[in-house]
Amino acid sequence: MCIGLDVDIDKIPKHLLKEEDPVFAFNKAIIDATHHLTVAYKPNLAFYEAQGIKGFQALRKTIDYLNENYPEIFTIADAKRGDIGNTSGMYAKAFFDDLKFDSVTVAPYMGKDSVEPFLKYENKHTILLALTSNEGAFDFQTKNVEGEELYKMVLKTSKNWVNGQNLMYVVGATKAEYLQQIREIIPESFLLVPGVGAQGGSLKEVCEYGMNRKVGLLINASRAVIYASEGEDFAEAAATAAKKLQQEMAGYL
Amino acid sequence: MCIGLDVDIDKIPKHLLKEEDPVFAFNKAIIDATHHLTVAYKPNLAFYEAQGIKGFQALRKTIDYLNENYPEIFTIADAKRGDIGNTSGMYAKAFFDDLKFDSVTVAPYMGKDSVEPFLKYENKHTILLALTSNEGAFDFQTKNVEGEELYKMVLKTSKNWVNGQNLMYVVGATKAEYLQQIREIIPESFLLVPGVGAQGGSLKEVCEYGMNRKVGLLINASRAVIYASEGEDFAEAAATAAKKLQQEMAGYL
Repeated sequence: MCIGLDVDIDKIPKHLLKEEDPVFAFNKAIIDATHHLTVAYKPNLAFYEAQGIKGFQALRKTIDYLNENYPEIFTIADAKRGDIGNTSGMYAKAFFDDLKFDSVTVAPYMGKDSVEPFLKYENKHTILLALTSNEGAFDFQTKNVEGEELYKMVLKTSKNWVNGQNLMYVVGATKAEYLQQIREIIPESFLLVPGVGAQGGSLKEVCEYGMNRKVGLLINASRAVIYASEGEDFAEAAATAAKKLQQEMAGYL
Repeated sequence: MCIGLDVDIDKIPKHLLKEEDPVFAFNKAIIDATHHLTVAYKPNLAFYEAQGIKGFQALRKTIDYLNENYPEIFTIADAKRGDIGNTSGMYAKAFFDDLKFDSVTVAPYMGKDSVEPFLKYENKHTILLALTSNEGAFDFQTKNVEGEELYKMVLKTSKNWVNGQNLMYVVGATKAEYLQQIREIIPESFLLVPGVGAQGGSLKEVCEYGMNRKVGLLINASRAVIYASEGEDFAEAAATAAKKLQQEMAGYL
């Protein structure tokens, strides 16, 4: 399990607004209450950027808090970056060197030289978008490109990039039935699976079609866990929701 | 002309490093020296993010300085964002409401609902990646999807999205020969054209194949202008380089 920290200041419990940094206070409480139930946290950059400099400070405090207190936990910057080589190099620097995330999500549209600057960090992980959880995935990702769907071409092509074997991929849980075919192309790769919960994806199907002999799945839950309660008991409620999901996952293992 | 503010602290003149905010001092000097020669500035987000909180502060000061002193100049956040709907909404909030940019570049891979949250801002501009200037553009963008290149499908499909007629598109100057076919699909749209200069694109060809009756081109120059000199005369040198480009462009108009 991965817990998505998509923290919207308008959705956190009201009593936290009196804190100096409400978003960090929220994240810290959620992390302290759930760290024993999860293997990863995934802050969604957009939610922090929307808060300007305060958001950036909350993000930095959150990742520093995780690295200092729970160094064994895997951290994902859900940023979906991607640009020409020298620019992607700057994004890699931002997420890997400066913020010290373990991994970052990257968009494939601009191809090899837009992704390799991330892959060059051999002790970090690059998580490439393949088949996303939203409706718009059907606009281009599932279209037929030279005999196969675009997302399959992305999977096959990217395997051949520098350190391509280290790539992880985003595959949305709302399209669990595609996982069988995806596993034929990348049997060993780790998949980050969003879309279980609020977006309607089925955990059972994801496990059935997506698991490999090393499990190979990092299933993300965001809203269903972090907003389990709007009251002062939000952290306990998040732990309860996470525990329920974790037990459900354990049942499939 | 658009001037790209891809400002790398390792490349700016050394005497600026004693300033409280070297990157902003650099940008301010470049803007003051070139604002009469350009219609747009395009900060590249990666370069600011790579500097952490200081980079964010320099970016904010730069956009505020532009909006206060040169409100007629068009501002582009070159960020290449794109995510599921509620997340793209947060990015739109970050760039349009918080930072107050006039426009932002967006990646198309996640389809309609990843782009429309930006398009909903009717008084702002969304600039969608179509055919980029890098080598990796040939990995997916030019591949044949159901009878035509993927970038053409992106152009045609996106025209039908909410406010799709307001979209601008990124088309790299290093692929100027493609502009003729692109103009058949989107004769009226404004194009943001990177890749002239350091990346090797030809201004003459871009104008020849890409201009429409309202010009319709915003040609970006970054490194060739802002790093024209490493000395104390960097701003004058940038103005000279910009003036030369502007005169060359005027010759094609």
